[in-house]
Amino acid sequence: MYSNSYGECFRITTFGESHGAAVGVIIDGCPSGLELNNDDIQKELDRRKPGQSKVSTLRKEDDMVEILSGVFEGKTTGTPIALIVKNMSQRSQDYNEIKDLFRPGHADFTYFKKFGIRDYRGGGRASARETIGRVAAGAVAKKILALKGIDIFGFIVQIENVKAENFDKEFIEQNPVRTADRQAYPLMEEAILKAKKELDSVGGVVELCIKNIPAGIGEPVFDRLNARLAYAIMSIPAVKGVEFGAGFKAASMRGNENNDEITPDYFLSNNSGGTLGGISSGQDIVLRFAVKPTSSILIPKKTIDINGQPKEIVTKGRHDPCVAPRGVVVAEAMAALTIVDMMMIHTGRNII
Amino acid sequence: MYSNSYGECFRITTFGESHGAAVGVIIDGCPSGLELNNDDIQKELDRRKPGQSKVSTLRKEDDMVEILSGVFEGKTTGTPIALIVKNMSQRSQDYNEIKDLFRPGHADFTYFKKFGIRDYRGGGRASARETIGRVAAGAVAKKILALKGIDIFGFIVQIENVKAENFDKEFIEQNPVRTADRQAYPLMEEAILKAKKELDSVGGVVELCIKNIPAGIGEPVFDRLNARLAYAIMSIPAVKGVEFGAGFKAASMRGNENNDEITPDYFLSNNSGGTLGGISSGQDIVLRFAVKPTSSILIPKKTIDINGQPKEIVTKGRHDPCVAPRGVVVAEAMAALTIVDMMMIHTGRNII
Amino acid sequence: MYSNSYGECFRITTFGESHGAAVGVIIDGCPSGLELNNDDIQKELDRRKPGQSKVSTLRKEDDMVEILSGVFEGKTTGTPIALIVKNMSQRSQDYNEIKDLFRPGHADFTYFKKFGIRDYRGGGRASARETIGRVAAGAVAKKILALKGIDIFGFIVQIENVKAENFDKEFIEQNPVRTADRQAYPLMEEAILKAKKELDSVGGVVELCIKNIPAGIGEPVFDRLNARLAYAIMSIPAVKGVEFGAGFKAASMRGNENNDEITPDYFLSNNSGGTLGGISSGQDIVLRFAVKPTSSILIPKKTIDINGQPKEIVTKGRHDPCVAPRGVVVAEAMAALTIVDMMMIHTGRNII
Amino acid sequence: MYSNSYGECFRITTFGESHGAAVGVIIDGCPSGLELNNDDIQKELDRRKPGQSKVSTLRKEDDMVEILSGVFEGKTTGTPIALIVKNMSQRSQDYNEIKDLFRPGHADFTYFKKFGIRDYRGGGRASARETIGRVAAGAVAKKILALKGIDIFGFIVQIENVKAENFDKEFIEQNPVRTADRQAYPLMEEAILKAKKELDSVGGVVELCIKNIPAGIGEPVFDRLNARLAYAIMSIPAVKGVEFGAGFKAASMRGNENNDEITPDYFLSNNSGGTLGGISSGQDIVLRFAVKPTSSILIPKKTIDINGQPKEIVTKGRHDPCVAPRGVVVAEAMAALTIVDMMMIHTGRNII
Repeated sequence: MYSNSYGECFRITTFGESHGAAVGVIIDGCPSGLELNNDDIQKELDRRKPGQSKVSTLRKEDDMVEILSGVFEGKTTGTPIALIVKNMSQRSQDYNEIKDLFRPGHADFTYFKKFGIRDYRGGGRASARETIGRVAAGAVAKKILALKGIDIFGFIVQIENVKAENFDKEFIEQNPVRTADRQAYPLMEEAILKAKKELDSVGGVVELCIKNIPAGIGEPVFDRLNARLAYAIMSIPAVKGVEFGAGFKAASMRGNENNDEITPDYFLSNNSGGTLGGISSGQDIVLRFAVKPTSSILIPKKTIDINGQPKEIVTKGRHDPCVAPRGVVVAEAMAALTIVDMMMIHTGRNII
Repeated sequence: MYSNSYGECFRITTFGESHGAAVGVIIDGCPSGLELNNDDIQKELDRRKPGQSKVSTLRKEDDMVEILSGVFEGKTTGTPIALIVKNMSQRSQDYNEIKDLFRPGHADFTYFKKFGIRDYRGGGRASARETIGRVAAGAVAKKILALKGIDIFGFIVQIENVKAENFDKEFIEQNPVRTADRQAYPLMEEAILKAKKELDSVGGVVELCIKNIPAGIGEPVFDRLNARLAYAIMSIPAVKGVEFGAGFKAASMRGNENNDEITPDYFLSNNSGGTLGGISSGQDIVLRFAVKPTSSILIPKKTIDINGQPKEIVTKGRHDPCVAPRGVVVAEAMAALTIVDMMMIHTGRNII
Repeated sequence: MYSNSYGECFRITTFGESHGAAVGVIIDGCPSGLELNNDDIQKELDRRKPGQSKVSTLRKEDDMVEILSGVFEGKTTGTPIALIVKNMSQRSQDYNEIKDLFRPGHADFTYFKKFGIRDYRGGGRASARETIGRVAAGAVAKKILALKGIDIFGFIVQIENVKAENFDKEFIEQNPVRTADRQAYPLMEEAILKAKKELDSVGGVVELCIKNIPAGIGEPVFDRLNARLAYAIMSIPAVKGVEFGAGFKAASMRGNENNDEITPDYFLSNNSGGTLGGISSGQDIVLRFAVKPTSSILIPKKTIDINGQPKEIVTKGRHDPCVAPRGVVVAEAMAALTIVDMMMIHTGRNII
Repeated sequence: MYSNSYGECFRITTFGESHGAAVGVIIDGCPSGLELNNDDIQKELDRRKPGQSKVSTLRKEDDMVEILSGVFEGKTTGTPIALIVKNMSQRSQDYNEIKDLFRPGHADFTYFKKFGIRDYRGGGRASARETIGRVAAGAVAKKILALKGIDIFGFIVQIENVKAENFDKEFIEQNPVRTADRQAYPLMEEAILKAKKELDSVGGVVELCIKNIPAGIGEPVFDRLNARLAYAIMSIPAVKGVEFGAGFKAASMRGNENNDEITPDYFLSNNSGGTLGGISSGQDIVLRFAVKPTSSILIPKKTIDINGQPKEIVTKGRHDPCVAPRGVVVAEAMAALTIVDMMMIHTGRNII
């Protein structure tokens, strides 16, 4: 159920296909009285949009947001906020020759198995354009969190085999890779461009940090804050794994090393990644997720068509050689939506 | 919301604290006409229960299940199935001296911050005894899946720094570590016992495999099969990360290597881990998750009491030096519950 | 939660205010492969739209639907269907003089108490224009039900003190009152026009009938079919009561009279209104609901302004003197959405 | 979905059959720190329990509640509260001769159609004993509401053709009919006993009043307070209709009469029944619901067996000749659960 909705209290529903009339989102549950205008949302969409640099796709979209409802005289009214972005730069003809082929690594095969039909143009609903709705809604969530002093930001810590070792928050938005490591940046960019030149693509790892979250957020048992964040992050296209704090390294640790000792003022370490028993401890929430290399590449691969016949395919179209940098923006949105939602379980509409 | 429930169609709600009267689960949504008796459930509880070997806790519980409702003359009726297990072997006195202390790595601190009160006896609701309800419900889900030929099994692939390299499915239930590697088993057991002897604990990695799942299961966008599984697995105590298929390794791969090519009969590789676009492809679902070392250790650690005063703590009680082997059983249950739930979105009550 | 969504399997989310940019609906859960075009939806919107006769409001809206997503080459794809209707005929100036007044019988007072803000133009979100989204989504649900031979239709059985005594299904759509009683029709119309002439309004009673529904639809205990229908109907603006089968008359009956006897071929009566224990019996579902007289009248009434000061108000604007005839269309939509939703609990996506 | 659960924030799940081991309820979402003991719950169960007077069933059950979880040292902990009542006075043999027959007016026929199986003993899950869980959970909700000064009470306003015309709140709990009319009471009792003597049963009407509810409770559009209450009340066995304020009488009123005028201090009337646009106005919530005559009667009726063969049936067992007086207690519980749930949407866990 609810496959296109996320959140219980601050609930979003996204809609739209890559080459349809529009993509968008409905936000249900936003408190009334929040100042909100197009720019608040547009600035996050601009961070996400394609065509920004040589490391991303050439598809240029203005991706201008329109607010259809829920805002009156510059303030939210407590009613559903409908946001749409019209699709402008569609080159559906790019897809004609592969309309009957399943692109390896893509959702073509599984959508067809599930629904018996697919909109083959640009991935249809499975396109990354679906994330526009998430980012637009996330911008509203971020605005609420900013009022509470909560800061969410992501950055690249690995591209192919280049790993970041330094951290400079300022640098993140100054480079198209969105790494916080000034030294690693040129190597990361080079790895992406080399793959692109070789008609190939690369993967990466993103780290996400949530600062100033109060203790007590997250629900016991199932709706743990880390479980909900894992769900939210894993729902982003191309994500293959997620870990918190020490993460997979915890498996090779002893309890004596891994346990975060507590003092009157702070914890002495953050191997937990900010949650204990699924509930925030007041420490930074720290998570990392792996992004697979873009499935659309210009190297021929084996596949089949909708009749099960063997074929060879080259995935044309305009694609990022590495989607991790744009994944940063989507992950921030999903995290912001998660945090607002789980805080509202405690506070209801009185969150602001 | 719903913090103690999981699933939309096949919905479970667990209840009970470690040292309360009973723990249990309500299953709402089980189809009618399924043959079900106590043994079906007891055999899974027996796999999970403590006190089975020298690598697990000394707390011995019979953990006998009672069916309170939903079954009539050996068959499910379509009404809620209530299962309870009475708590018998409670040594609450073990906890008296730490009733005002927060155990590092445990949920004591965050539950207290959240609720302003806690049942300090044995972790209360945050105890691993809560997972009894999950395993009991999972046994019912497994029974449904068995009717459809779907097999779910987990096994240990890493304990501390010992990694499995061989696979022998038969061996899994023949050793208390639940590894599938006959060669690695003695080394893994040794790592656990060494830590125990040193009053410490160790972590591990579990791999979970789901065979014969049909293509088309999982919902687009948010309720992806991998996102739901990540949520389900991350909701298990002590889990710090989860990955699918190539997982974090995908971050350092090229698209040309990572893309699973398709032939008329099968995929040529399974880097995806069995889903594309969040929907099952018909390949095996393969995931791994990291389990942190048990937080309860006998080595003194810094902490604070409920008044914020600095203290030192040694966590007595009866605890597994490594919880990963028992985590295998809980993870199988959560996976079974997830698969049945998501299949029922397609089929409704006609699943059997 | 979910205040703007309805349904679990076939889930709609409506959005939009009376004088905003657009109103609309997202349908999540519609099965793939359903033939669907604008006309299917437009014909139901045309039945609902204002300005059709002298018994309804003078506000004329074309209310043209646009399909933004979820349909490809004339068929649904299983992804969210976004439908919008732009607001065209807005005369917001009608509302300037009452922007600080609470209209008696309207939601102005309670929205202001709840949200601390209101969009006063035409009732904002509380406007009957919100029901456009319901009717548009209901048209899709009706299309699914038609494939299964299920017929839903409503008609007026009372206007003020004029009660229907005859039934001619054909006549319903031939008269603007939407009564099935040719004899009562002129009296009903006269009652409406008399009230209008006297600057007043009248109420009415609608009967709704659902034919050919299979036995077994509806969930035990809470999600009874009659409970869900009661919820759906009571969520329509201006509805003050709902009853099934013998309804309130059952209170003065004996069991011997009220019990519907069963024979091999049929029930001997339908006092139950088509459900037993909340589950459909295969008989016609029959319900009636009371619609209060339109709150907007031209007779001066006592009220207060947003500062609590006493005022007198006359509600100008363009309003139906009786909303029951248009309520028929909205109720059919809500019933269709309910039936499809509850059937899908049984069948999942295999409903068509 | 969720057929055995009710509520979003304060969520209950009931389980158990009439002649199974136990009936009960899980409450998920109760705030922590609420003082709660067995007596709080038992006193409401005692009001509901059968065998209290000559106007109710002879089945005597002690219906003693046990708290299995969620309460520690006399206070709720914020974890699920599990309450069970063991079934003691089962005379399943009463049902042997009708095990293959469908009792007219009962859910036997529809459960069998739906599930292909039924627990025929005492109605199984469709028995009124299911409401024990509702009343137990409602007692907790009432305790929360009492802290906020909100009072919920119901009373009989009609039995068969005897209608109440006077109101004396004190009298309600002093008479087994639970009417507030001292004059009508003997006539109502006589009507019930006369029907009983004639092996028959009678229906009635209950009025429910909620005092001191703040303005602003209830959600726009679908989750209106009146819609949720209608759903909650219609989910009670034997209820055939529900109305608010002027109710069905509103259909024959003019707007000029029906509109509740507003003054600085209060509304001049309460035709609305306490909600405007589905949101509480601060006035009393007033609703009435119709209860059909008990379906179990000793007069022979036509029916069929599970093979479709015509039969005659007399429904033995121990049954109330009129269930409306006990319906009062169940309706209060459902209303209390609804109000707490909808208040928590605003306040989250900070309700107390």
